[in-house]
Amino acid sequence: MLRERYPSKLLEDAVEAIGTLPGVGKRSAMRLALHLLRQPSENVHHLADALVHLRDDVKYCSTCMMISDADTCSICADAHRDHRTICVVESVRDVMSIENTGQYNGVYHVLGGSISPIDGIGPSDLTISALVSRVESLCDSDPSASLRVTNDVEKSPSLEVILALGGDVEGETTAFYIYRQLSRFPVKLTTLARGLGFGDDLEYADEVTLGRSLAARQPFKP
Amino acid sequence: MLRERYPSKLLEDAVEAIGTLPGVGKRSAMRLALHLLRQPSENVHHLADALVHLRDDVKYCSTCMMISDADTCSICADAHRDHRTICVVESVRDVMSIENTGQYNGVYHVLGGSISPIDGIGPSDLTISALVSRVESLCDSDPSASLRVTNDVEKSPSLEVILALGGDVEGETTAFYIYRQLSRFPVKLTTLARGLGFGDDLEYADEVTLGRSLAARQPFKP
Repeated sequence: MLRERYPSKLLEDAVEAIGTLPGVGKRSAMRLALHLLRQPSENVHHLADALVHLRDDVKYCSTCMMISDADTCSICADAHRDHRTICVVESVRDVMSIENTGQYNGVYHVLGGSISPIDGIGPSDLTISALVSRVESLCDSDPSASLRVTNDVEKSPSLEVILALGGDVEGETTAFYIYRQLSRFPVKLTTLARGLGFGDDLEYADEVTLGRSLAARQPFKP
Repeated sequence: MLRERYPSKLLEDAVEAIGTLPGVGKRSAMRLALHLLRQPSENVHHLADALVHLRDDVKYCSTCMMISDADTCSICADAHRDHRTICVVESVRDVMSIENTGQYNGVYHVLGGSISPIDGIGPSDLTISALVSRVESLCDSDPSASLRVTNDVEKSPSLEVILALGGDVEGETTAFYIYRQLSRFPVKLTTLARGLGFGDDLEYADEVTLGRSLAARQPFKP
């Protein structure tokens, strides 16, 4: 769509701004802009205000870096949570996904991404040093802990760090980097089980998943 | 996604507001909200301002109802345009599509939709009466015109109205309604040619399009 074809500069500005959103092309941006034109003005103001408030007023939990309305998020503030099990995730959305399972009672640490040299994202762009400080202070607070880092799930040191990162190269790189950073502390490092999805047919599984599922086969428990 | 799972009220508000956009579900809305969180604040303000300015400050051309930055749009204000050929379309986007062809030198009339009883849209919700007034005043301004409405493209009355409406039931209903409203004026009413798209294979055409293309076959011009 050529620049001079826009009937209005205001429309052009709106389409260009909407078009900067991920996954929204020029055509979708135009559709959304024309949709907003047909809405009551207060709806558009409400949307615009919600975006600005989100960006400017949201806080990040000083402990786990999760977005929050207060300095400490509701999960970190919850005394019923297990504060010695830390699930390390890449994003806020991962926390919400895990929370939605209702299966996890520990706390989190949000990295804010994964190490990706190709995108110029190094360890210092993530909250890894905050994670290391957090683990360090938790280890100091429990002097009985004397085990070195271990991947053996059977043993039970008092502090567990679950690396719930992506299965891609970036996620694995990040996991390995954190593993090296935490190896001097007496923490149990674990990672998510990977294999066929629940209810998946073998026929439709990709070869890597199927191969790893086979290699990591489990005793049958009827 | 349950209401209480949101880590922040601000996030929830933003996701709900974004989720009101057409074609944007809860998951996409969450993805967009988290994307905006990672952007510089001024980018989010720019987006929000662009949406509000578009909604509140855009004008509609008093002649053709096209959106515009002034009271008369650039097309209606253009003296090189043929102001006695009016292309009637449903939406602003249709004008832009036709303008992008570079094949049309007349003016437009934007209806603002099509007659759709199922959606509660009647003729009075569209700009049909403005079109009738416009045709009436154009006819008055050319007293030499004495022909009644005709669908014969060969004859050349001084005023042509092209019904460039959708090929669905709503578009055809609207075209028929306008035809009846304009039948008392000496205008030439035309409609867009329909048939196989340029370069289309017969194999992939739907039966209705192929059937109508066959029925409306044209003399071969090598």
